[in-house]
Amino acid sequence: MGTILLKHAILKGKQKDILIKGNRIAVIADSIPVRAAREIDCTGKSVTPGFINMHTHSAMSLLRGISEDVPLTEWLNNIWSIEKHLQKEYVYWGAKLAILEMIKTGTTCFLDMYWMSPQVAQAVEEMGIRGVLTYVFLDNYDTEKSEKQKSECIRIHGYSKEWHKRCKFGVSIHADYTVSPHTMVWASGFAKENGLIINTHISETEKEVLSDKEKYGKTPVAFYDSLGILDSNVIAAHALWLEDEDIEIFAKRGVTAVHNVNSNLKLGSGYRFRYGDLKAAGVNVCLGTDGAASSNNLDMRESMKTMSLLQKGWTGDTTILPLNELMDVATINGARALGIDTGRIEEGALADLVLVETRSEAFIPNINFESNFIYSANSSCIDTVICDGNILMEGGKVAGEEQLLEKADEMAWKLINAT
Amino acid sequence: MGTILLKHAILKGKQKDILIKGNRIAVIADSIPVRAAREIDCTGKSVTPGFINMHTHSAMSLLRGISEDVPLTEWLNNIWSIEKHLQKEYVYWGAKLAILEMIKTGTTCFLDMYWMSPQVAQAVEEMGIRGVLTYVFLDNYDTEKSEKQKSECIRIHGYSKEWHKRCKFGVSIHADYTVSPHTMVWASGFAKENGLIINTHISETEKEVLSDKEKYGKTPVAFYDSLGILDSNVIAAHALWLEDEDIEIFAKRGVTAVHNVNSNLKLGSGYRFRYGDLKAAGVNVCLGTDGAASSNNLDMRESMKTMSLLQKGWTGDTTILPLNELMDVATINGARALGIDTGRIEEGALADLVLVETRSEAFIPNINFESNFIYSANSSCIDTVICDGNILMEGGKVAGEEQLLEKADEMAWKLINAT
Repeated sequence: MGTILLKHAILKGKQKDILIKGNRIAVIADSIPVRAAREIDCTGKSVTPGFINMHTHSAMSLLRGISEDVPLTEWLNNIWSIEKHLQKEYVYWGAKLAILEMIKTGTTCFLDMYWMSPQVAQAVEEMGIRGVLTYVFLDNYDTEKSEKQKSECIRIHGYSKEWHKRCKFGVSIHADYTVSPHTMVWASGFAKENGLIINTHISETEKEVLSDKEKYGKTPVAFYDSLGILDSNVIAAHALWLEDEDIEIFAKRGVTAVHNVNSNLKLGSGYRFRYGDLKAAGVNVCLGTDGAASSNNLDMRESMKTMSLLQKGWTGDTTILPLNELMDVATINGARALGIDTGRIEEGALADLVLVETRSEAFIPNINFESNFIYSANSSCIDTVICDGNILMEGGKVAGEEQLLEKADEMAWKLINAT
Repeated sequence: MGTILLKHAILKGKQKDILIKGNRIAVIADSIPVRAAREIDCTGKSVTPGFINMHTHSAMSLLRGISEDVPLTEWLNNIWSIEKHLQKEYVYWGAKLAILEMIKTGTTCFLDMYWMSPQVAQAVEEMGIRGVLTYVFLDNYDTEKSEKQKSECIRIHGYSKEWHKRCKFGVSIHADYTVSPHTMVWASGFAKENGLIINTHISETEKEVLSDKEKYGKTPVAFYDSLGILDSNVIAAHALWLEDEDIEIFAKRGVTAVHNVNSNLKLGSGYRFRYGDLKAAGVNVCLGTDGAASSNNLDMRESMKTMSLLQKGWTGDTTILPLNELMDVATINGARALGIDTGRIEEGALADLVLVETRSEAFIPNINFESNFIYSANSSCIDTVICDGNILMEGGKVAGEEQLLEKADEMAWKLINAT
């Protein structure tokens, strides 16, 4: 069993040694006088949990910047016209590119909603992070498609048990405007039977809410609830246009809400994510980047800053979402929703952590590490990333990244030119 | 006269050689077959103008992170209780730290509103960038203070002619709630007589607007205009709570408006900066970071992303502030307002430019350089910074930065502990 000893790391303002045995944090103490297979001198570095990106479409990194400064419908059409040409190798390389970005910016676990999850699982296994990879239901109210998707979901779930232990299988219901109620209910039942999380897009735009009200006389959240879908295994992406009753339903059912601040802003979906009300109701709130085709990167640290600033800006309340809560939103809250024992630097937890280099202008003076990390620095301060007890990045470098970038670039252009 | 030849740089999507002679861009061509004192191989790098930070209080970098997650009044009291202890050496080292941050993030020129501008001028001279450094009027309606400030302003203006040519002198009127109308008019007259710009805080908070309406029956902008102050030499920081008539006045008088998006959000001042209306009225719009005590860093590239996303988010219009306009807001618009021939990569312009490293995951695929630069990358992509024909940073390193950081850190703690 491999051991890693982190010497002289700063953990919550105090200098500590941290001993990792296998894939868990074994000991945290002022000084640990043992020899380890690998010792890392952490002088000048702070340690934080790896981020958990709770909503993304990883392989869409291949489409980064494909469509800028255009209306939403044009953006969607551009994306869809390219996605028609997707094949396994694109998803595999897109996911590898996305995971490289995530590692570079300190993310050690992500929840993915994209086609061909087995290819994403392969990328996760090879790159060393954790992924909850979902089978995506999107039947466009077509019964034949629905049946096909059900059997495919069962099939992939079956062999997902052979995936690496860092990969978990889950179910996605794309959205209630793209999936028939029949399929939604089936997917939800399948997830519950098998102890899987359900990821879904909900109340992302005002249009969506108005449309459901016209169609069902209900908000999307109330509609999902009327189908019996909402439960503590449900992770609701966006949840931007929530009404008071929606928040009550989320609280009652134990649904997790995932803010995707950069994507919501950039696509013009809105800005009034009701963090304060969700918190008051006891709803678990997490953060995601969405796919790189909308928000352009998968940088959780950057998204944390935007989330905090926007909360303060639109509410006028400078005390909302203080730094300790913001750190939780980006780490432990996600771990809780996914049922993975990560997101915290404590003895016994999975060894998923990040070393942050503080010897730079962004950390002068270092009165408040979290403030400097989130508000002042950029993500190049992320020096070392460890996941599941393995070192994925050191000194800002991931082994083999040049070759990965070359291949991903080649695949991106092949995909773009396929249209 | 020194010459620098940039070989194989990407300029607006095309590979170019750029020859710098002295402090200007002399030639831009597909290939320049000359020998230069210094040749830089720019393979894999794009060239952009250096950013112009149009509002900051540079030395406040010493107070980074001093006060987080507290109400605005508490924040202000914390800042003021420390600023009481300011001395020349703090301002000098604070400005050096701020300028280092600016160089690292691609800024080559800034407009500063802070005490002891001669110390800032010294820091600017030594660090190699450009600064417009203002004498700050803030008399708190005290006649004695006003008279003292007038003579100090005259005195510093007198010897500012001996400052390095990269430094320009200007006048700041802190705000209409901290400066008496008499002093405002005098400062404005002095600036006009001497061809100086005037920097002022205006309509930053709703409270300020409501207070002026009660006091004068006018918005702050209308009040300034009634004093005859507004003219094309006026650079209005914040301008967040503008009414329709305010925008008309700005347009008629040729006033420049400077958005400080991160600061406005973080201090809970608001989010509805009326870029679309200002643009439609023909008002020159620029961008600033404000001081690091409020927005925590001086990273213009990061602020550009926040500005673009917030514009799209609050208006719901994804086509607002397209990338080419965003680049202008952060470069040439500022140059125009300051009357400095920079902010553009063209033959004859001052040689103030940035080389951006594109061989990283943030630029894969590189369909749209500006999109990747602003939306996907972080500022560690800024590899080389040239200002006034001098190389200030290469390979992400500024000469002497370690010593500078050490000294600035020492000074910051000395200042903090002085209280």
